[in-house]
Amino acid sequence: MSSEQRLIERVGRAFSCRAPGDLHVGIGDDAAVIRASRSADWVITTDAFIENVHFHFRGHPPKDAGYKALARATSDLAAKGAQPRFFLMNLALSRAGTGKWLDDFLAGMSEAARRFGLVLIGGDTTRSEYVAVNLTVLGSIAPGRSVLRSGARPGDAIFVSGTLGEATLGLRLMTLPSASRTRWKPLLQRHLRPEPRLKLGQALTRGGSASAMIDISDGLSTDLTHVCEASAVGARIYASQIPKVEVPPGLSRLKIDALQLALHGGDDYELLFTVPKRHADKVARAFRREPVRMIGSITREKKIVLVDAAGKSSPLTSQGWDPFR
Amino acid sequence: MSSEQRLIERVGRAFSCRAPGDLHVGIGDDAAVIRASRSADWVITTDAFIENVHFHFRGHPPKDAGYKALARATSDLAAKGAQPRFFLMNLALSRAGTGKWLDDFLAGMSEAARRFGLVLIGGDTTRSEYVAVNLTVLGSIAPGRSVLRSGARPGDAIFVSGTLGEATLGLRLMTLPSASRTRWKPLLQRHLRPEPRLKLGQALTRGGSASAMIDISDGLSTDLTHVCEASAVGARIYASQIPKVEVPPGLSRLKIDALQLALHGGDDYELLFTVPKRHADKVARAFRREPVRMIGSITREKKIVLVDAAGKSSPLTSQGWDPFR
Repeated sequence: MSSEQRLIERVGRAFSCRAPGDLHVGIGDDAAVIRASRSADWVITTDAFIENVHFHFRGHPPKDAGYKALARATSDLAAKGAQPRFFLMNLALSRAGTGKWLDDFLAGMSEAARRFGLVLIGGDTTRSEYVAVNLTVLGSIAPGRSVLRSGARPGDAIFVSGTLGEATLGLRLMTLPSASRTRWKPLLQRHLRPEPRLKLGQALTRGGSASAMIDISDGLSTDLTHVCEASAVGARIYASQIPKVEVPPGLSRLKIDALQLALHGGDDYELLFTVPKRHADKVARAFRREPVRMIGSITREKKIVLVDAAGKSSPLTSQGWDPFR
Repeated sequence: MSSEQRLIERVGRAFSCRAPGDLHVGIGDDAAVIRASRSADWVITTDAFIENVHFHFRGHPPKDAGYKALARATSDLAAKGAQPRFFLMNLALSRAGTGKWLDDFLAGMSEAARRFGLVLIGGDTTRSEYVAVNLTVLGSIAPGRSVLRSGARPGDAIFVSGTLGEATLGLRLMTLPSASRTRWKPLLQRHLRPEPRLKLGQALTRGGSASAMIDISDGLSTDLTHVCEASAVGARIYASQIPKVEVPPGLSRLKIDALQLALHGGDDYELLFTVPKRHADKVARAFRREPVRMIGSITREKKIVLVDAAGKSSPLTSQGWDPFR
């Protein structure tokens, strides 16, 4: 269990109480789910975006920072298959953060809000030494349809969307001189402007075939661990099946190991989901136009195993993002 | 208009869009109100509690800090007359903030959660240089019953609950040596452990007599300005009617002007509400066991006037809490 996971459990213990009847999912998943009416559940999640932790005031273009802050938070709705509806924003602003930077930041976030279908309904503003943005995002979904972290069962097939490690490669490119950065713009964009997989999450939820789902924000090794811990299962995944970032020949001097980035790099906001074996082929067919790949299966034994190209198995430990490690 | 108000308008403009049909109240009030079903509206609000802005890591007992963080956020639900239900917490923690301090902080917040009827349903944790706690609180209310800032009309009577200025006096006492602090514990408590006026807010909402309501978090002069600006009206209030903090004789050396504290001191979390003239007597009678006082009336002319004990009028400007002044 990661340091952050232990901290979350400590918080949960401090507030332990009987869950009310209309609380469908509480603390410990990507988002909480409340039974709001007979026709809809509300999915609600909150996310921090903090200067020098998640972005740099000078290093990151403010428009991209605003876009990314909301995209990150919205990705948790994608992982539940919810339709984004409303958001609230707490803005703690440094003196420099109230000027032109703020206008650009808001413009980028506004672009993301329109794209995802989110309406700002409230918030709070305060002065602070560093910029800190706290977002709460609400979505809706048909009652009981949200997919949890905890539903994976032995034998289920494990799928991921997209290509993993691209965002971390983009982050590495941020350290290059700006002239050479322009050349690698598409890769940089994956770091600067992630896209939550809203449509895929909604389609999987409507289809009813996914047994568990999470967004890959901390890295495959860490987020697969979250699913396995919540579901009390293990997993076996195949290195050759993992959709890895393609490192362009022009960047070979960076000596990047694509598999390591794909396994442990965070910030991709792709979806990791499991599907009962009998539906696996159907899902693979249904999403053949989407970038969806089967990478392994859920096991009864509670450990995560990586099988390399030569067929050799080794334990895979969680080495993704953990702010408290 | 305050600097903070201007900032909020700037944020609102960046995200301007048509409000969806189920959004009853959006940005700009104490809380947003969503029509969740035929039998309930959801009231949702978010609040930041930041080290060195809202509390001091060493100066404030951690249990009290945890209690107050949640009480402040819940006060916005009181101002809408809502029943507290759920909350989410983003914890940004410094290295020192993950130790014993955190256990005490969580214990104090857990006490508040039980008292207010709030269940923790989610959140986020991250590392930061300073402790920053961002809370999102959800409550429910019968559809269409929430009272807004914008409903005050000329002729309405203005009421406040409790005694104003006590929390700010308590804050002043925090600077005394700890031995003499013990002597003034009840006053200190008003600063350390504010109590949101949940029952009063709910009773006023059920009764249907309040035309506008706000919680006094920034100070009477500032929060009355918020109501007047949102309602496009003015106000006339009487210094002799304002329930002022009683400064004990033992503290006379602090040279505290009780009226100034009552007018501009924040952090009291009392309710300020307006009532149509024809209902004013009824409300005064109905709440005669509550500490509720009529302090003046709403005027057509858009300015706020304070009438002193000798009957002399002077303009009252907003001098309460404004983080961006």
